[in-house]
Amino acid sequence: MFKLHPQLKHDTLPLVQFSLCQVRLMNDMHYPWLILVPMRMDIQELYQLNAMDQQQFLLESGVISKVLRIGMQADKVNIAALGNKVEQLHVHHIARYHNDIAWPEPVFGKFSAQPYDQDYLILMQQKLKTLIQQEGQQLRMRWQLR
Amino acid sequence: MFKLHPQLKHDTLPLVQFSLCQVRLMNDMHYPWLILVPMRMDIQELYQLNAMDQQQFLLESGVISKVLRIGMQADKVNIAALGNKVEQLHVHHIARYHNDIAWPEPVFGKFSAQPYDQDYLILMQQKLKTLIQQEGQQLRMRWQLR
Repeated sequence: MFKLHPQLKHDTLPLVQFSLCQVRLMNDMHYPWLILVPMRMDIQELYQLNAMDQQQFLLESGVISKVLRIGMQADKVNIAALGNKVEQLHVHHIARYHNDIAWPEPVFGKFSAQPYDQDYLILMQQKLKTLIQQEGQQLRMRWQLR
Repeated sequence: MFKLHPQLKHDTLPLVQFSLCQVRLMNDMHYPWLILVPMRMDIQELYQLNAMDQQQFLLESGVISKVLRIGMQADKVNIAALGNKVEQLHVHHIARYHNDIAWPEPVFGKFSAQPYDQDYLILMQQKLKTLIQQEGQQLRMRWQLR
């Protein structure tokens, strides 16, 4: 039975759920920052997922990366699986922009999170959900065509 | 024709070559720090690799992660695809230890690289090559058995 780590629950807001991962929005207005959490217990490293889950992770990570790079028009996507403080496997996917507050440095440990205000949060959640749904549908279509 | 980015060439030492990635050792004694560089031009994000290359990346990244976590007895492996400064796709795989200089923070931008001295470099290269060869062989055996 999967249980989300309390620290991840505290720092993030639920967005969508894929077959493997919960996709959660980091509560930080500085960057569109999504966290993928595979719903598997006692896994710390990507290679510890079984082969089928690793395939699925690749797919879900690709959808989120495309949503950020193309849909959100990021200049670069930063992906990171760190987990030094929170041992439950979770993978950061962050849309980076040439004019964001930390560019070109990595975001980690740079600035304290600036929580979303309610109006902007609703807009961001809606935009991301729409983009993820669109990208996910294209993916299913490609798969069905095979 | 693949050409390694000059900055990556400057910061790292060649170690081994898989079918997709060059595996290079960051010239920084602070941590066993490997960089996987897919030998494909004009790719900035993992999702931009074609499906077969993504599969292969997963395999090669898994070998390196296991080598660091199990072979090098890391407490945690940190994986990161950033590329804000060097646009050529390259993915950091870093063995982290509870007593390393930056723990539990990410290593990026923390401390200046401390180049290997010649004796320690030879030891480290030999150890990593042996571990990678062992892990790679196990992998091939599993694949042959299927």
